[in-house]
Amino acid sequence: MKNEKLCGVCPTSLFNGDTEASGRVLELDRWLMRAFLKGVGSPDIEVVLWDGRDLVGGRGAPFRMVIRSRGTLFRLIANPLLCFGDDYSAGNIEIEGDLVPFLETVYRAMARPGDVRRRSGRLSRWSQAWSNTLAGSRQNIQHHYDLGNDFYRLWLADEMLYTCAYFPDAAQTLEQAQTAKLDLVCRKLRLKGGERVVEAGCGWGGLARYMAKQYGARVRAYNISAEQIAYARERARHEGIEGVQYIEDDYRNIAGECDVFVSVGMLEHVGPNNYRKLGEVIDRVLTPDGLGLIHTIGQDVAEPMSEWLEKRIFPGSYTPTVREMMEIFEPYAFSVLDLENLRLHYAFTLEHWLRRFEAHAPDVARLFDESFVRAWRLYLSGSIANFTTGSLQLYQVLFSRRGNSRVPLTRSHLLAPEPANERM
Amino acid sequence: MKNEKLCGVCPTSLFNGDTEASGRVLELDRWLMRAFLKGVGSPDIEVVLWDGRDLVGGRGAPFRMVIRSRGTLFRLIANPLLCFGDDYSAGNIEIEGDLVPFLETVYRAMARPGDVRRRSGRLSRWSQAWSNTLAGSRQNIQHHYDLGNDFYRLWLADEMLYTCAYFPDAAQTLEQAQTAKLDLVCRKLRLKGGERVVEAGCGWGGLARYMAKQYGARVRAYNISAEQIAYARERARHEGIEGVQYIEDDYRNIAGECDVFVSVGMLEHVGPNNYRKLGEVIDRVLTPDGLGLIHTIGQDVAEPMSEWLEKRIFPGSYTPTVREMMEIFEPYAFSVLDLENLRLHYAFTLEHWLRRFEAHAPDVARLFDESFVRAWRLYLSGSIANFTTGSLQLYQVLFSRRGNSRVPLTRSHLLAPEPANERM
Repeated sequence: MKNEKLCGVCPTSLFNGDTEASGRVLELDRWLMRAFLKGVGSPDIEVVLWDGRDLVGGRGAPFRMVIRSRGTLFRLIANPLLCFGDDYSAGNIEIEGDLVPFLETVYRAMARPGDVRRRSGRLSRWSQAWSNTLAGSRQNIQHHYDLGNDFYRLWLADEMLYTCAYFPDAAQTLEQAQTAKLDLVCRKLRLKGGERVVEAGCGWGGLARYMAKQYGARVRAYNISAEQIAYARERARHEGIEGVQYIEDDYRNIAGECDVFVSVGMLEHVGPNNYRKLGEVIDRVLTPDGLGLIHTIGQDVAEPMSEWLEKRIFPGSYTPTVREMMEIFEPYAFSVLDLENLRLHYAFTLEHWLRRFEAHAPDVARLFDESFVRAWRLYLSGSIANFTTGSLQLYQVLFSRRGNSRVPLTRSHLLAPEPANERM
Repeated sequence: MKNEKLCGVCPTSLFNGDTEASGRVLELDRWLMRAFLKGVGSPDIEVVLWDGRDLVGGRGAPFRMVIRSRGTLFRLIANPLLCFGDDYSAGNIEIEGDLVPFLETVYRAMARPGDVRRRSGRLSRWSQAWSNTLAGSRQNIQHHYDLGNDFYRLWLADEMLYTCAYFPDAAQTLEQAQTAKLDLVCRKLRLKGGERVVEAGCGWGGLARYMAKQYGARVRAYNISAEQIAYARERARHEGIEGVQYIEDDYRNIAGECDVFVSVGMLEHVGPNNYRKLGEVIDRVLTPDGLGLIHTIGQDVAEPMSEWLEKRIFPGSYTPTVREMMEIFEPYAFSVLDLENLRLHYAFTLEHWLRRFEAHAPDVARLFDESFVRAWRLYLSGSIANFTTGSLQLYQVLFSRRGNSRVPLTRSHLLAPEPANERM
């Protein structure tokens, strides 16, 4: 399996041979690079051009970005958000120093408050021709999640949970923190034995397994990734878990009735044009006294995803603001009960993933190739930087129907799990 | 002081004498009343018209609404949301049975899910020519809050807190629950000794006193109600509280810098057209590592206030949805950290207020008149019903600037107050 999974048409291929044939660095090249750095907020980095000698950034900066050819420089200037990723993946850009703090430095420079305000000058939603039709969604999801269970098994925790964990204590292991997340979600939902749960976008099925095993819930879990569903079914069978049904279908086709609706890490793939549709689905299936929870990556200002991330890693994805999320709830008079922002927890989670990924980089290179390793290194590192600098947030939103007074008065039940015998 | 404070031009005065001179009940009257009941969702109530005999609603319903004249009936049908309140206040409508469950029954009938969805068919904000200019706000606030401290002292708890309390235990006294609310707000804000707080809309100054006394904070508290500011200053002087400065000015004129921005129960009077302005004020004064909290009555669907409430009780007021509140935060890239919905706590709080109000009804009648007593009974009872049925919500929203990582990882600090010696 080569990196065709990673790129559609990778523009670096248009410039083959550039790396060797850039010739000497011209005054024009230096001028362009300086202008570019100024344009992205003058981050405190040094830049080395392809003759290996020219420094055009600050002096004594803790990071060096090496640009290996004039073609790379021109692409970077023409479309930085796409081509930095592509050229880094292809090895045409190298970062000397740790990648995460380098990216944090760049993101912070690019997100100076003035810029954020200017970009969000109008509160209109960033518009794009979302391709998340039924067929489009399937294709988009397969691009990412059907890279192979062998690949994800290398660096996710045992339960194959590919969403933000919860670290009550930052020193916890990834496994502990993922279990803590599962239990936090169940406690927020006041899950009780025998309750009927619908899970939209179940990944490899870990939350559904947990709800069935630990709380005695009956879960119908939906997903359109064939590989994930096959894994989830096999694992539930192997562990002898009853009460979980994995359904290979789109969230728009969810039918029946449920006491609890939960979706962890699917909304990023739904697209804002479909939020109202998602609300309609929840409105169709949730009982009058039911509770729901949506867990999603989000952002505090409506901005497009990085073009590289959207094109190469997560096609069709978008991370909503709180305001945009309300289009799920408001048209159906759902009441928002609780919103928690777990931004820093996702930075911790990603740091665990990146460490494991790096430890298995040779295995990943054998499964794919070196440019795939570099692309995923950049994706994981960039995500850490997005969460530490606040370009991304992680929202957990608990909701009910209007006037449901079954909800607890305080949050005391969220802190400690109830004894298991009280739950079932 | 008569009820000129309550009504501008009270339309019931146009129909003087109706009560006595309605004549016999016609078939047309009964037909109109039946059609009206159907139009408001057929609540399970009985209706008695002015001959004292005619029942036109359900049989065996737990509540009876007595309509004392044809004029009242016609006004009710023409403009129910305004005239029910006015005619109830004037004694032209009487409710037999408890007022709160009567109103809950009516609100539930009027808010059938289908209706809510139809009303919110477009997510456009309900628009109105808000009169909350600097001068307009002052007039609106004086209408309600300058009714006299003697009046509010009759039924508010000792600290004169006129916002939703927090009942960790539903059996707590109002005083305990108000203190619990103050401390919850301080804990959410991680308030520390010496921190500079700006409070926008400080009421009678209770939160500012608490922050200064219990946490050693230095508070600048703004309010445009002259009577409240005078009370707050006198009380702080009397109690010898240092570190609190009460400023009679509009939130739009807040200057300087603060580590903590807090506003409890002011946003209802700001008006959606000014949310962006409020965000601009916060953006101007909050330090990079600062935290902010806004506590407000809200709703899950954007709908206008009851016309009666807006005209007679709270001129210029509007209760926002979560989506609408985001216009405070999103343009300035504030990150929402935590949102808690305390809806049921406000129902408890109002029940305490209503009990105390009823115990002092003769005193209130002496201060104003009987129609004032009836109007406030309806306002307090209707508010309880709004919170129990979910037409109103109570949102506490905690926020920071983008990327502020000073925020705690979990909510464990919210449950128990830290020892006092750790705070100061």
